Amino acid sequence: MQDISNPDAAFALDPRLQADTFPVADLDLCRVLLMNDARWPWLILVPRRPGIVEIFDLGADDRHRLADESARVAATLKSLVSAEKTNVATLGNVVRAFHLHVVARSTGDPGWPGPVWGFGARLPYDEPAAEARLRSLRESLR
Amino acid sequence: MQDISNPDAAFALDPRLQADTFPVADLDLCRVLLMNDARWPWLILVPRRPGIVEIFDLGADDRHRLADESARVAATLKSLVSAEKTNVATLGNVVRAFHLHVVARSTGDPGWPGPVWGFGARLPYDEPAAEARLRSLRESLR
Repeated sequence: MQDISNPDAAFALDPRLQADTFPVADLDLCRVLLMNDARWPWLILVPRRPGIVEIFDLGADDRHRLADESARVAATLKSLVSAEKTNVATLGNVVRAFHLHVVARSTGDPGWPGPVWGFGARLPYDEPAAEARLRSLRESLR
Repeated sequence: MQDISNPDAAFALDPRLQADTFPVADLDLCRVLLMNDARWPWLILVPRRPGIVEIFDLGADDRHRLADESARVAATLKSLVSAEKTNVATLGNVVRAFHLHVVARSTGDPGWPGPVWGFGARLPYDEPAAEARLRSLRESLR
């Protein structure tokens, strides 16, 4: 039986998102993931609610919480990596489970000023670089 | 002297956004624009606040209002054109004045399932098609 007092209980991270990312932290609503692509500082926020596909599938409280958490994560990431601009987007054309991208962009990065999605091939982090980035992200988001 | 009781007063639409779009409607916070590109049903929301670049430049109330208005516009557009998925994004790598894209996407549309930004050349509406789309959008958003 589903525990309706705890909507987290029925949430499961999409296996494709899980395969492409490292877990960073759980905020009040969202799980924060680091995209395993060293070309851009790239986080993904996933509300821990089951069955969300579109932004309008979230209730008003969760929608506001998502807005707050995405603003906080975007500000933190931009400052941490001294980026020029953040790109914040939910597409979901391939992976339908709702997820929000927060990508730090700067002049001259791969694909600049175009979007990151579908651009070239993913460049996985080497292990020390991933660990260093995860450590600094976790400290900044604490 | 700036009328601080009316933050709309100091707002001016970025001239590049103005040149590429048709005005649809003003919601409580955002001006809704129709992108003049017939390849996709594509709206742009611009909060009528001066000097906003990043999502975190908005105060909490405006951020929540933007979340509500973008959800409403995305649901309306998706239903109006019977789309498969909405893409909701703020990039701003070229035009820094804050604007939020709401694009209706479906399997087989130009560039699917990739992003619309930077894909090929803009295809302006012919006048009757633009007028018909604006009319139905205005009715749906009333």
